[in-house]
Amino acid sequence: MSRTIKIEKSILEKNDVVAVRLRKMFSGRKLAVINIMSSPGAGKTTLLVETLKRLAPRIYIGVIEGDIATDHDAKKVEQAGAAWVVQINTGGRCHLEASMVEKAFNGAPDGLDLLIIENVGNLVCPSGFDLGEGHRVMLGALTEGLDKPKKYPGMFRACGYLVINKTDLASVLNIDVSDYEKEALAVNPDLKIFKTSATSGDGMDEWLGWLESLVIKGE
Amino acid sequence: MSRTIKIEKSILEKNDVVAVRLRKMFSGRKLAVINIMSSPGAGKTTLLVETLKRLAPRIYIGVIEGDIATDHDAKKVEQAGAAWVVQINTGGRCHLEASMVEKAFNGAPDGLDLLIIENVGNLVCPSGFDLGEGHRVMLGALTEGLDKPKKYPGMFRACGYLVINKTDLASVLNIDVSDYEKEALAVNPDLKIFKTSATSGDGMDEWLGWLESLVIKGE
Repeated sequence: MSRTIKIEKSILEKNDVVAVRLRKMFSGRKLAVINIMSSPGAGKTTLLVETLKRLAPRIYIGVIEGDIATDHDAKKVEQAGAAWVVQINTGGRCHLEASMVEKAFNGAPDGLDLLIIENVGNLVCPSGFDLGEGHRVMLGALTEGLDKPKKYPGMFRACGYLVINKTDLASVLNIDVSDYEKEALAVNPDLKIFKTSATSGDGMDEWLGWLESLVIKGE
Repeated sequence: MSRTIKIEKSILEKNDVVAVRLRKMFSGRKLAVINIMSSPGAGKTTLLVETLKRLAPRIYIGVIEGDIATDHDAKKVEQAGAAWVVQINTGGRCHLEASMVEKAFNGAPDGLDLLIIENVGNLVCPSGFDLGEGHRVMLGALTEGLDKPKKYPGMFRACGYLVINKTDLASVLNIDVSDYEKEALAVNPDLKIFKTSATSGDGMDEWLGWLESLVIKGE
């Protein structure tokens, strides 16, 4: 087991070197960059599409889409108004790495205000890989149940921001959104929490306001 | 990149050696073994609990619970009637490996009829690791959306059986279960499909019937 762990450490160290370089470059451009992570199907792409529909008319947004296979999501976000989109297909790999982002960003247009990186749907592995982003955001869908923060503490601790999504299903699921909040804060008391239903639009204003504040600060 | 891929290959080859040994041992005991995989929150534990409530009175079932952290699930399945339960906490690792199962199974009682291995909630990495099981089963929750088979083809192809779960939410989500079936079969035409709502009990009879048939065959 120790051999495997050592190998992983070396992959992570190599990743960190690239991430530091990326962060410096993003900072030099005053580009706000967020890395969005979640389980498969928590609603990252739907949130992104609804975000683009509302913000793209006034903010120049680039998107890097990480997926194991297909370019379905890249097409969706392009249609929703992203100024620039790159699809990364990891070909089976379970997370994005900084080197993939660096390569994908090569060729991005000048003047982007905001770069959103949608990671591979996975509540475990992506949390270990710094992509040079300014902010790490995770989506937790109510449909996944209340036990996820305690069962996947690595992801909840790696992120500064949590979007509790699919709040429109709270009554059907008989789950209280505030109970999910409590479970998440018990694992990471510093989490800033948004509550959204990307499908109904509930809670989108706070989320969009935060993104706009990042663009104004350029970080 | 090629260096990383080589390292992974060596980890997988090492895993396969142990998996072959495990499969031989399970077969010698005429023990039916299934490895259940899914995203976090797709309903593996709820399905398992409802399965145990119905089958444990007449079948001697052992469970190996794989989680990154906590022993919540082990407690739940114990209360639901599992004859023997071991919790594996992977401490951040994103999948179970054959060596973990081998170690966990050491000390299992004689006479088990069925061993259910609940893998770490992750729709990517666990699919690459043979655990010596007789059958690989994946859960796909309707709440995750219809695009998952095409976006995570590795998992859908690694499994012989698919349980489409949370069918009780089909009308709320405005998703037709047969559309999910079509998407899954397009990626893997050999999938045998069960449709369940572990919470309402719909479709449980076919699932339980299949498990009982495995016990009778001892494989």
